[in-house]
Amino acid sequence: MSEQIKPKTLPGFMELMPNEQILFNKMRETIKNSYESYGFLPLDTPIIEDANILLAKAGGETEKQIYRFNKGENDLALRFDLTVPLAKYVTEYYDKLSFPFKRYQIGKVYRGEKPQRGRYREFYQCDIDIIGDGELSVVNDAELASVIYKTFLNLGFDDFTICINNRKILNGLFQGLGVKENSVEILRVIDKIDKIGPDKVRKELCEEIPEDKVDTIINFISITGTNDEKIEALEKMDISNEIWNEGIADLKEVVKFIRIFMVPEDNFKIDLTIARGLDYYTGTVYETFLNKYRNLGSVCSGGRYDNLTEYYSTRKMPGVGISIGLSRLFFQLTDNNIISTENQSIADVLVISMDNNYEECAKVASYLRENGIKVQVDFENKKIAKKFKYADKLNVKYVIVLGEEEIKNNVITIKNMTTGEQNTTTLENSVKFFQK
Amino acid sequence: MSEQIKPKTLPGFMELMPNEQILFNKMRETIKNSYESYGFLPLDTPIIEDANILLAKAGGETEKQIYRFNKGENDLALRFDLTVPLAKYVTEYYDKLSFPFKRYQIGKVYRGEKPQRGRYREFYQCDIDIIGDGELSVVNDAELASVIYKTFLNLGFDDFTICINNRKILNGLFQGLGVKENSVEILRVIDKIDKIGPDKVRKELCEEIPEDKVDTIINFISITGTNDEKIEALEKMDISNEIWNEGIADLKEVVKFIRIFMVPEDNFKIDLTIARGLDYYTGTVYETFLNKYRNLGSVCSGGRYDNLTEYYSTRKMPGVGISIGLSRLFFQLTDNNIISTENQSIADVLVISMDNNYEECAKVASYLRENGIKVQVDFENKKIAKKFKYADKLNVKYVIVLGEEEIKNNVITIKNMTTGEQNTTTLENSVKFFQK
Repeated sequence: MSEQIKPKTLPGFMELMPNEQILFNKMRETIKNSYESYGFLPLDTPIIEDANILLAKAGGETEKQIYRFNKGENDLALRFDLTVPLAKYVTEYYDKLSFPFKRYQIGKVYRGEKPQRGRYREFYQCDIDIIGDGELSVVNDAELASVIYKTFLNLGFDDFTICINNRKILNGLFQGLGVKENSVEILRVIDKIDKIGPDKVRKELCEEIPEDKVDTIINFISITGTNDEKIEALEKMDISNEIWNEGIADLKEVVKFIRIFMVPEDNFKIDLTIARGLDYYTGTVYETFLNKYRNLGSVCSGGRYDNLTEYYSTRKMPGVGISIGLSRLFFQLTDNNIISTENQSIADVLVISMDNNYEECAKVASYLRENGIKVQVDFENKKIAKKFKYADKLNVKYVIVLGEEEIKNNVITIKNMTTGEQNTTTLENSVKFFQK
Repeated sequence: MSEQIKPKTLPGFMELMPNEQILFNKMRETIKNSYESYGFLPLDTPIIEDANILLAKAGGETEKQIYRFNKGENDLALRFDLTVPLAKYVTEYYDKLSFPFKRYQIGKVYRGEKPQRGRYREFYQCDIDIIGDGELSVVNDAELASVIYKTFLNLGFDDFTICINNRKILNGLFQGLGVKENSVEILRVIDKIDKIGPDKVRKELCEEIPEDKVDTIINFISITGTNDEKIEALEKMDISNEIWNEGIADLKEVVKFIRIFMVPEDNFKIDLTIARGLDYYTGTVYETFLNKYRNLGSVCSGGRYDNLTEYYSTRKMPGVGISIGLSRLFFQLTDNNIISTENQSIADVLVISMDNNYEECAKVASYLRENGIKVQVDFENKKIAKKFKYADKLNVKYVIVLGEEEIKNNVITIKNMTTGEQNTTTLENSVKFFQK
């Protein structure tokens, strides 16, 4: 026997217990099915890519966090998101793809961040993007809001809000006011409004730009009311700028189509303060909040970008996409007891033998499996109490008990593990029972 | 605009077109569902692990092929199989798990082999294992043969053979003959019987061990007949060795239960020459062949091992498992035109507008999605011929066409893209049509 090593999963890497994994997989499956119901095509790009290709546009934090290494002469890296691999894919296989190219990808990405509670170095992203060849209708932006709505509804939520904005409105505003070079600072201050209130925002802005322009910005971020009232208020503002006008027109169209897609008025709202970073998004932006758990932050974000492939190609490929960070979301939901990982099982039923006679157990299991029922059998020789304890730990709802009596009379006994109730019936009759 | 980099997927990394990916995912899903129907629990361990933990028992080829790198002070590696992570998992979470622990894991593993046609550096393995705490009934070995049978049946195959053997028979034979120290060489020679025939095998074996012992081995590997005839012939051989006897008893029990599990006699067979490597498996071993494509090699292999966790723990944890190398299998099946990736689509139907009126399209799509139909909409302003070409490329079976007439009369026109047939009906009536 060689020396033994104490096994340990690396810090910052999520590894779930089976009951947790079952629920995690159900959520992943629900997201997948929601994405597919809109016709998004599956992709599964490699986790390892050429480091120089992955880092074509990256810098700063990304460079520091990336897992990069050599194998032979190759300079390799693990993907840190699913967007860069998509840009690579679309450029590499452009001739074979049809546009608009609608794809989803659900997979692990890697960022060597400092491990913190609920922050993972390996985590699942669930992305969808729609990529146009040269142009892409703004109706797609509305459809994505509808995908977010359907996905969270299917995940079992109803009290959530999809916040939308359009970056052209912010850009147009700053350009129209002639304060474009102060955008970064202005957005940083605006972003604090919930925390510090409008008075302090005003004061901080006045340190950056002239007071009359601060007034306009304060008026802008103070716009309240229904979605229609907000659009009306925007249209009344005296900003003479083409991008501003485009932004309002786009936002109006998106709101109109979100309604046509039957997203309830309660589940989406224009939020003029959302920007989502500075250099990437260029049109519609989304953030999604669970209203009772606003502290979790946005659970699904994204937006429209002018050109997915600019680092790889001269072709212009506008796109719009959203992403759900599933690993982090799963952690937050379980950690806050919003969802429960208890009572999760794969098998519908566990078959156990009273007297270690496994032939009948195998026959019963085979028959039920033929009828689409998920069946596990306990083939180990142990006392009946231990077999029931095993069933308990597996969280199976039902146990089929086979003893001498049952075999003699050609019946099975079904025990409901929740209520303790027992019933004896024929194998054939049990099929319908288990199927519901 | 920064300098552009030509994007390129690394050699040896599988990256599929959407139509291929759809089929790949269907196969993966089928395997998953087959595994779950036996109650196997899902696991999803990290792809990155501590290098020293992953390599606890490795050596030789594994060390050379592994992707190993440093990040900060950590010595990390990408998993090269799913068995070592399972051993780690079972040891680390022993107290929280129930045994026998039945788990499946479907995930990517990494081996920096020389790139060859159909050999990948990143590939999917689809594994199941049953791990016992101290002991594990041999009936589980039969159940795994039944899982293999069901999985390949569900994948659409029927003409395949699961070959089984028991390593104790081989070990007992060599031990009984007193040629245990020549096992490696004997197995290497036996393995060539299909290629070089029994005469040359005899000749080569005579270079290793005494002629009378070669006779016994030749008699052994020449055993033919039905499964029952083979067991009978084994029982008649005059090998006085405890392990040999155990092996025959185990094999008999496994065959008996494979039948109880309703695996047809045509789909499994005792093959006394299968060994599957030297130091790992200790009991039942499996290989699976598609009979018409025997040249593909084994498409599903595995076996029983005495102790999963010997490098991590003093506890004895016997197990039995099988693995499907899905990426390689998918390549082989498509490359040999055994399965076709054509006509694969996600959306059931594409909705297009004759005159770029997207409101009705969005309404129709929303209604159908509410009824469980997968619907894509083409929202781009382009000529109708281009819209149909897009539908063609997506392989959708049906297109819903909405023109002025349809909207006025509150109907939809459905075009069957295979036959060209067109029908006009109400949206409500179309639901049943699409649902079948």
